[in-house]
Amino acid sequence: MANSIYRASMLQSYSQLLFQPCLSNKHCVPKKTNLLCFASSQLNPARSEVSFCTGTHLIPHPNKVERGGEDAFFVSNFKGGVIAVADGVSGWAEQNVDPSLFSKELMANASSLVGDLEVNYDPQILIRKAHAATGSKGSATAIVAMLERNGTMKVASVGDCGLRVIRKGQIIFSTTPQEHYFDCPYQLSSELVGQTYLDAVVSSVELVEGDTIVMGSDGLFDNVFDGEIVSTLAAYSDVVEAGFRCSFLEEISGDEANRWKA
Amino acid sequence: MANSIYRASMLQSYSQLLFQPCLSNKHCVPKKTNLLCFASSQLNPARSEVSFCTGTHLIPHPNKVERGGEDAFFVSNFKGGVIAVADGVSGWAEQNVDPSLFSKELMANASSLVGDLEVNYDPQILIRKAHAATGSKGSATAIVAMLERNGTMKVASVGDCGLRVIRKGQIIFSTTPQEHYFDCPYQLSSELVGQTYLDAVVSSVELVEGDTIVMGSDGLFDNVFDGEIVSTLAAYSDVVEAGFRCSFLEEISGDEANRWKA
Repeated sequence: MANSIYRASMLQSYSQLLFQPCLSNKHCVPKKTNLLCFASSQLNPARSEVSFCTGTHLIPHPNKVERGGEDAFFVSNFKGGVIAVADGVSGWAEQNVDPSLFSKELMANASSLVGDLEVNYDPQILIRKAHAATGSKGSATAIVAMLERNGTMKVASVGDCGLRVIRKGQIIFSTTPQEHYFDCPYQLSSELVGQTYLDAVVSSVELVEGDTIVMGSDGLFDNVFDGEIVSTLAAYSDVVEAGFRCSFLEEISGDEANRWKA
Repeated sequence: MANSIYRASMLQSYSQLLFQPCLSNKHCVPKKTNLLCFASSQLNPARSEVSFCTGTHLIPHPNKVERGGEDAFFVSNFKGGVIAVADGVSGWAEQNVDPSLFSKELMANASSLVGDLEVNYDPQILIRKAHAATGSKGSATAIVAMLERNGTMKVASVGDCGLRVIRKGQIIFSTTPQEHYFDCPYQLSSELVGQTYLDAVVSSVELVEGDTIVMGSDGLFDNVFDGEIVSTLAAYSDVVEAGFRCSFLEEISGDEANRWKA
């Protein structure tokens, strides 16, 4: 149905080359999240190896600021890099359970298991082992992405955390949320009725130099249109700065959503 | 931001088990397309091997019926199965070039190269070799998916053909179109200014028994909402029948779009 023949003169290039040293920390303690921005860079052209360059940012929901929000994340520089986000399910607060405990412990466990031999650099197995090691009461959605140095990024996701890959100003890869019904996502749980690693959607995408990856909880993707994420990234060459800007957009959109609801 | 804790009693299952013999033909001549529906089935539980069960359907644009439309496809039962769609760019008609010639030759070449040793069951390399072998003047968008018998489906796409994977009544994997600007997609071309296999988005997804795959040109996805595709599939256990129904929806939506434009 496409009508236009492509001609070189019409090429609009949005290429971003965000070459930055990797700032990730293999054993960082998860404490804040909502948005992680990454750029893959060809560190060694001779071997065509890629790794993440990382910026992170979090804005807790206004009602959850006191406990630092219910999300957790970790970043690792193991191999090409590992990034993960978990979002504690807020419904647990009604049962006097802090929804952030499960997500934080899950991410702490995942962080410590990144190099595990049995995990074998498989994000689905990392979710299985991290979930099994988590003793807190609660539940969380979770997404894990592991980058091989050859450019293959493997992704496993349970629930409605999300990931986008932006290349030359366009989203070229996107995860899709899973939910049982509105506002009830698939979730890893302390209870037997929850989902497991077997329910994860497992996918992968081949990254190239200059790609930008945005990962976040549904708090980002429910409040910021994909087009806004793309246009924000186009305006910044620094992934950390872009991350702050995206989060600012989310805060504005969230406020607008709250006003709309009111 | 999710609020609801998942409880087993609330589970809504949309699981489809479409077990059908594979009807694909390795060397079929591409002649019609727009929609391909597939179900992966666990043919041999002991070895956990999967393969496609296939239904196909095409409705050419009303203005293109005489030449059979500008799309082409092929289906192969090589390994777990190979499916591909190409959409000839209609702008070539203004230069008195039949837009269907390029897409049809591209798919014929791809079909004959599926078992090529150099292709090595890599959809991006299949696109490279099929494109190089195509002598017709014109251009086309194209998507190729190759299923390994272990359940890994590799996808390579140039332009705005698309693919959806539906699991338990939800889309769990979706490709994203690439375009230079509105209605001008990335395209494989007879001209040097076009795109190549290097511009393909290459991804993969792990399929499980009962997943349904819908592949088509933008003629499907521009006219039928994802929700309509999902609800249509839920109503049919036969992929061929579901394919016809999806195409019927497309025809209706296309007519409505035309009316809206008028």
